Amino acid sequence: MIILKKDMKEKRELINITLDRFLPRKDEYPKDIHKAMRHTLFAGGKRLRPYLAMTTFMLFSDKINKIRPVASAIEMLHTYTLIHDDLPDIDNDEYRRGKKTCHTVYGTDLALLAGDSMITYAFEILTLVDLPMETRITMITEMARETGYRGLINGQMADILAEGRETSKKQLAYIHENKTARLIRLAIRFGCYTARASSSDITRLEAFGDKIGLAFQIMDDILDIEGEKHLFGKTIGKDVAMKKATYPSIYGLEESREMATNLIEEAKALLEPYGEKAEALLLLSDFILTRKF
Amino acid sequence: MIILKKDMKEKRELINITLDRFLPRKDEYPKDIHKAMRHTLFAGGKRLRPYLAMTTFMLFSDKINKIRPVASAIEMLHTYTLIHDDLPDIDNDEYRRGKKTCHTVYGTDLALLAGDSMITYAFEILTLVDLPMETRITMITEMARETGYRGLINGQMADILAEGRETSKKQLAYIHENKTARLIRLAIRFGCYTARASSSDITRLEAFGDKIGLAFQIMDDILDIEGEKHLFGKTIGKDVAMKKATYPSIYGLEESREMATNLIEEAKALLEPYGEKAEALLLLSDFILTRKF
Repeated sequence: MIILKKDMKEKRELINITLDRFLPRKDEYPKDIHKAMRHTLFAGGKRLRPYLAMTTFMLFSDKINKIRPVASAIEMLHTYTLIHDDLPDIDNDEYRRGKKTCHTVYGTDLALLAGDSMITYAFEILTLVDLPMETRITMITEMARETGYRGLINGQMADILAEGRETSKKQLAYIHENKTARLIRLAIRFGCYTARASSSDITRLEAFGDKIGLAFQIMDDILDIEGEKHLFGKTIGKDVAMKKATYPSIYGLEESREMATNLIEEAKALLEPYGEKAEALLLLSDFILTRKF
Repeated sequence: MIILKKDMKEKRELINITLDRFLPRKDEYPKDIHKAMRHTLFAGGKRLRPYLAMTTFMLFSDKINKIRPVASAIEMLHTYTLIHDDLPDIDNDEYRRGKKTCHTVYGTDLALLAGDSMITYAFEILTLVDLPMETRITMITEMARETGYRGLINGQMADILAEGRETSKKQLAYIHENKTARLIRLAIRFGCYTARASSSDITRLEAFGDKIGLAFQIMDDILDIEGEKHLFGKTIGKDVAMKKATYPSIYGLEESREMATNLIEEAKALLEPYGEKAEALLLLSDFILTRKF
């Protein structure tokens, strides 16, 4: 039997070790950029995306080392979006993951460059992983596409445009699809590619990813209202203060919570064919509903 | 006989058409990010790096269409560095290539995201070009490395650290090597890879690139002092005002000009084996010394 907290911690540590090895030492010249790169990357993130890539991979294989660099590249890409999003140019956030944001500590110039570095580095890592060339090329194309101007950046754009305005359900779904869902689905797909899973497995697990991804976002919005800062890590009430479009603001708290509960039920049902091997993913699904941070 | 101005214009137009096809239409949702991406990209750049990739390629092949997407990817990468560099987070520049900078027109949020998009898109393009997988993987690894925290970003970092301080010749060389030389060398290398040039040709042409790249930087610094804004496009005197380390500020104007002249002579000598085929590169070398913009 898996204990989720322990399993997440173990896999998080594997990712942290991998990231640490990839990154330059803090005392290498010019030091400051290396420190800035490490700041947000090691600021205690949940490593949800790498965890998804790893646990998906482990439905089909137990050679966990094979997925570590791939999962790290995804986390780097994700971390870049956090650093740039927090900049005064966009959200001007002072706290993230319970710590001061990168630009608050290192200045906006270094934070900007640290974010930029993580984009290029994530791509570099994918060129070097021990997988067939064709798989590497596919992963790079998809990572670029899902995170680029048609994907993640599109979602950030739509999010910025929606601020302070009346947002429709359709627009909210559009923002979520681009800003969050794509990278979660990518993590799952990368887990499948690395394990050479079949295309029907990929389709099924992507659907799983979509459901837990949306549930995760809804719960994140709820935590922004109900959470406690010392647990949640971010500034509480920021969404409301900035008039951000959120699930509770459009569907109300009760309906939002119900949506999340149903999504998690549907997500878990999709894992049936994998039996006991899916234990970690099942526990993770439940955790999304109950997490306090 | 080639007329340089005409040849540069023709190749610039080929690149502009290629870039235009790659980019989303201005009226696609969300419009603003697409407009912002196009703003700096089509603000009348010289397209020096794509031109170098193309003319290097054409030492070995006349199938110019093969190099167009590769050259465009390099220009996108270069343009991202301009957009992010101009942001208030770093240089806070109001003019670039004779036009208002991206953030001055579209706001810092969009400029930041437009820059980000161009990084990911440049990588995406390299995965899709009609070249052997191995070549594509090599190009992606090298582009990531040369532009990442060990390369271009390292140079920007060192540049920021040097501002307002006494800069040594060694530091100035370090900044130039990382901030400018790497991408110029990369353009030349990509021209070679695309044409499947031999490794001795690559070595020779990289050395050529290093020499004209340094001459280009020295002349750029000189133009910042002596140039005319309406020709040069950037704010004149900005380097001096910001106490930036430049070649004239460290070596003096006369010695700087002499260095550039010698570098161009050495660069041209390296092209000897290519005879008439190197005409465009020879003319370009001379142009670097005489340009007013």
